[in-house]
Amino acid sequence: MEISPKSGLEGVVATSSAICYLDGDRGVLAYAGHDIHDLAQHATFEEVCYLLWHRRLPTRTELGDLKTQLAESRPLPDGMVRLIRSLPWSPQDNAMDTLRTLSSALSQFDTAADDTSEIGLYRKAIRLTAQMSSVVATYGRFASGGGLIEPDPALGHAANFLLMLNGDRPSAAATRAFDIALTLHADHELNASTFAARVTAATLSDMYSAVVAGVGSLKGPLHGGANAEVMQMLIEIGQDAGVERVDDVIRGKLQRKEKVPGFGHRVYRTEDPRATHLRRMSKELGERSGNVRWFDISQRIESVMKAEKEINANVDFYSASTYYLLGIPISLFTPIFAVSRVAGWTAHILEQYENNRLIRPRADYIGPEYPQSFIPLDGR
Amino acid sequence: MEISPKSGLEGVVATSSAICYLDGDRGVLAYAGHDIHDLAQHATFEEVCYLLWHRRLPTRTELGDLKTQLAESRPLPDGMVRLIRSLPWSPQDNAMDTLRTLSSALSQFDTAADDTSEIGLYRKAIRLTAQMSSVVATYGRFASGGGLIEPDPALGHAANFLLMLNGDRPSAAATRAFDIALTLHADHELNASTFAARVTAATLSDMYSAVVAGVGSLKGPLHGGANAEVMQMLIEIGQDAGVERVDDVIRGKLQRKEKVPGFGHRVYRTEDPRATHLRRMSKELGERSGNVRWFDISQRIESVMKAEKEINANVDFYSASTYYLLGIPISLFTPIFAVSRVAGWTAHILEQYENNRLIRPRADYIGPEYPQSFIPLDGR
Repeated sequence: MEISPKSGLEGVVATSSAICYLDGDRGVLAYAGHDIHDLAQHATFEEVCYLLWHRRLPTRTELGDLKTQLAESRPLPDGMVRLIRSLPWSPQDNAMDTLRTLSSALSQFDTAADDTSEIGLYRKAIRLTAQMSSVVATYGRFASGGGLIEPDPALGHAANFLLMLNGDRPSAAATRAFDIALTLHADHELNASTFAARVTAATLSDMYSAVVAGVGSLKGPLHGGANAEVMQMLIEIGQDAGVERVDDVIRGKLQRKEKVPGFGHRVYRTEDPRATHLRRMSKELGERSGNVRWFDISQRIESVMKAEKEINANVDFYSASTYYLLGIPISLFTPIFAVSRVAGWTAHILEQYENNRLIRPRADYIGPEYPQSFIPLDGR
Repeated sequence: MEISPKSGLEGVVATSSAICYLDGDRGVLAYAGHDIHDLAQHATFEEVCYLLWHRRLPTRTELGDLKTQLAESRPLPDGMVRLIRSLPWSPQDNAMDTLRTLSSALSQFDTAADDTSEIGLYRKAIRLTAQMSSVVATYGRFASGGGLIEPDPALGHAANFLLMLNGDRPSAAATRAFDIALTLHADHELNASTFAARVTAATLSDMYSAVVAGVGSLKGPLHGGANAEVMQMLIEIGQDAGVERVDDVIRGKLQRKEKVPGFGHRVYRTEDPRATHLRRMSKELGERSGNVRWFDISQRIESVMKAEKEINANVDFYSASTYYLLGIPISLFTPIFAVSRVAGWTAHILEQYENNRLIRPRADYIGPEYPQSFIPLDGR
């Protein structure tokens, strides 16, 4: 046991990877060399999926093929729809518990789940990406009392999610905003959920098992769970205080050493480049809907946090108000993160399989000294 | 990014831990300082659970309390029984797919799943350990066409598993053999499934999410999945060749560079101390039942592997014939590993929560050079 790194494996290189370039000092995020700012401005989520899986952007034909494959995979098997209806939704009302169970069950309806050929694995990445969206949208639809909405093969991935959730064809503006949000969340190198997925895949377990590990990890409030917490905070502040008293509320939290969700990041020392786009979208969606309240409160919180702690907003902070203004229920904020990140998880799982080694670190033993003598029960 | 370790985090210390002492050079495995040989000889699985969770052996009163808590947690909620019946069992016929979905669903029937107090977390560790056994036994019972068997509060953990699986009260010898197998598999420091569970828990996600990550990782053939592969190999050899031709079969596999399951370990350079006990049990159970065929074939394979590759049998090798002689179907071999390892997973998850830090390593980027220029679709 030679190497004893900082806790949390901070700064430890666990693998090489061709998927995501991340420079925390300069605030750079790029998928296969393509800057996230370019992708947010010009690409669709489908192009981003192709980029993550193939490390280059698709031609028009390749993109068309991918869209067809996604469209074919999008309808849920009847058994999955029955399962969404019949599962006791988590007593904790945490949609991530249900999503974890449902994404696990997806493998049981996939008759080719065991196909580990290159084509079979790629098919699973497409299927998981298509069905994660359908599962979350359908769960959200049922939770709000609506009936099943079938996907529309003529619409893209972002529009289909909004259609299946709300039952109406979404506006071009809402579709584009949601598409950008999906692009921004699609990958982030060895974040905790992706790392959990790679640890699982490295046992040569299947892609579904690895994605389910990702879903369970994303749930955590130190990871994807933060975006729901941000919106709950905004609503509390909005109800109790309003924008004029944000400073007092946030300073009070800091004095009581309460965590303010949506701030700070293990890697970025500068602005999270994803926050730049989500801030702009939160502002634009607010102005378009005539409700800039959430943006104003958010911006005020951001400036207090900058002044008091010199800490930057992360991807979760402005995604909260962006999703809220898109009419998405708070319970779906973290599941939506999974709808996007599944593209990155599957890209990393495919890469793990390509050049696999079991991921198995060591622990520094600090327990009772070895050997302890075994005292029979009556002598204890 | 300072530290660039060997691939698979080999030899990297990812955390300190008071649970498991492992010396791969001397072949030592100890839970909280207690040597695995002492525990296999003298302890019950319930004592081992207490040891892993508390880092000391229980008094008689403490053990009695734990047994009561396990007994109370053992019956499955009606909804879980319905789910076991209604889930489409994996088209791949891999019981680990079903177990992953079912262990995820357990949280949805736990009204106190969100209780993160010390007592609440401990209650969940007990509940998960009790119900993992009930889920696997009930799944196995239904798979063989049997009806639901309720647990018997007068029996211990090992006996209840066998009762709920087979419908008959197990013999003392079978109970003791299974109890020892549970003890031997209960923990193994930062093995891949436990590490996946800790990565998940370190996002402050819940205990069920972390255990589900463990189940999905254990499924892999480089981890728990190997024990089923060993038995399939033994049966193939037994049918096609018999013990007299084992040498040819194994040498042929080695020449064709096929993997021989059940051999080698990332940590041990000497005999896996768990293999010592499982070898003995395989022999004893064979002699008792008058069927030493599987032991003889196993022993012959072991000696060929020693001679040809200087590689030792691991925990999976003799557990295969041991479980087979206990009448357990091969499809349950890896799920049974989870029935035991859940004790270690939950101990590690509790320890992770006690002194938590997000586990988030870095990747060495080897993809297309940054920045790539974004060429619009029509120009590609």
